[in-house]
Amino acid sequence: MEIQILKDILAANKNAADEIKALLGQKKIYMIDMMSSPGSGKTTITDRIISSLKDRFRIAVIEGDIKTTKDAEKLARHGIPIFQIETERFGGDCHLEGSWIKGCLERFDLDNLDLIIIENVGNLVCPAEFQLGDDERMVVLSVTEGEDKPAKYPLMFHTSDTLVLNKIDLLPHLDFSMEDLMKNVQDVNPRMTIFQVSARTGLGMEALVSHIAERVEAKKKQA
Amino acid sequence: MEIQILKDILAANKNAADEIKALLGQKKIYMIDMMSSPGSGKTTITDRIISSLKDRFRIAVIEGDIKTTKDAEKLARHGIPIFQIETERFGGDCHLEGSWIKGCLERFDLDNLDLIIIENVGNLVCPAEFQLGDDERMVVLSVTEGEDKPAKYPLMFHTSDTLVLNKIDLLPHLDFSMEDLMKNVQDVNPRMTIFQVSARTGLGMEALVSHIAERVEAKKKQA
Repeated sequence: MEIQILKDILAANKNAADEIKALLGQKKIYMIDMMSSPGSGKTTITDRIISSLKDRFRIAVIEGDIKTTKDAEKLARHGIPIFQIETERFGGDCHLEGSWIKGCLERFDLDNLDLIIIENVGNLVCPAEFQLGDDERMVVLSVTEGEDKPAKYPLMFHTSDTLVLNKIDLLPHLDFSMEDLMKNVQDVNPRMTIFQVSARTGLGMEALVSHIAERVEAKKKQA
Repeated sequence: MEIQILKDILAANKNAADEIKALLGQKKIYMIDMMSSPGSGKTTITDRIISSLKDRFRIAVIEGDIKTTKDAEKLARHGIPIFQIETERFGGDCHLEGSWIKGCLERFDLDNLDLIIIENVGNLVCPAEFQLGDDERMVVLSVTEGEDKPAKYPLMFHTSDTLVLNKIDLLPHLDFSMEDLMKNVQDVNPRMTIFQVSARTGLGMEALVSHIAERVEAKKKQA
């Protein structure tokens, strides 16, 4: 019973995601679904991306949180459109769904946007099951979380395009094997693009920002 | 519709939790439900607790993971009963449910146990909604996750009894305000008992272990 309901929910979500994909294709807007555990650094990474690209592209952010608008407040200084979804109003949901993203897009001026970054709810499990019609699924993993996460949360890593390995400034203070991590990533998703960064210090952010800029440009040029 | 189904699931879970509570009361076994984000250090903490208490109490562990038996393998060296639940078989579930814990308890020799530690699925959201009939809900938060987590995941912190603040050996390398964390905890749960530890170095573990030992003794003496 529970499984049938879940299938129905996922099917409805897939329809919403397809509609979003078509709309973003028509408007030539690139959209990233950024996912991670709580506290892995999504907001700091997003903040750095916006700082680097806001003079070049028109950017908007969708913030997913169960409660609080803290992350949206942190990003407000950039003066870009930010839409906050507090999932507590939907029963404390642990993920974002396509229909809610559709609702957000209706409030943005889509003719004047190039890039939308979704910060999903901090959770390595449930968001993996819900497609949002984005162009790039980006999972952020802090090295403090350990090298076993791709093996323990395989759907998240298997369905994502990009891995941003954050907090590498802390590596000297951790028992962390980069070799083991790379092996675990290889096992679940050998096609994954990997960036190693410290969003706090800025280390490695340039490569990530260039990657996103290239993808946004490519989408703008699509026929 | 989705909300009604969730209510039915939660009601069924509550029944299972009540049955577990009665059973553990009768057998005088103390049970801890340990919850956290992925990678906050639950297994290392559990490993330390077992090392310190296995000569004094008869301990068993229930490991919840979506996939892999890595954590159970790490703890196997202690030669204690360990039951692994891989939730991938239940549709990749993001939490443990009372009925599954009941199933585990049927396989343990309950007349020869004093303490059961449940390591829940790494997730600050969904496990908060499912009571498991335990004596103590313990949330582990790594300081690398940031001081805003109690505000962002209020149900988890509001419904837990104990906060284990882990990885404090990394504090000199982080921008972390202990004062802000304490304020955020106070806001959602002023009755919370807090331990500051580094499971990796062992710092602060003695106080946590003593707390657990006292609670196990107290339950054994209950009429």
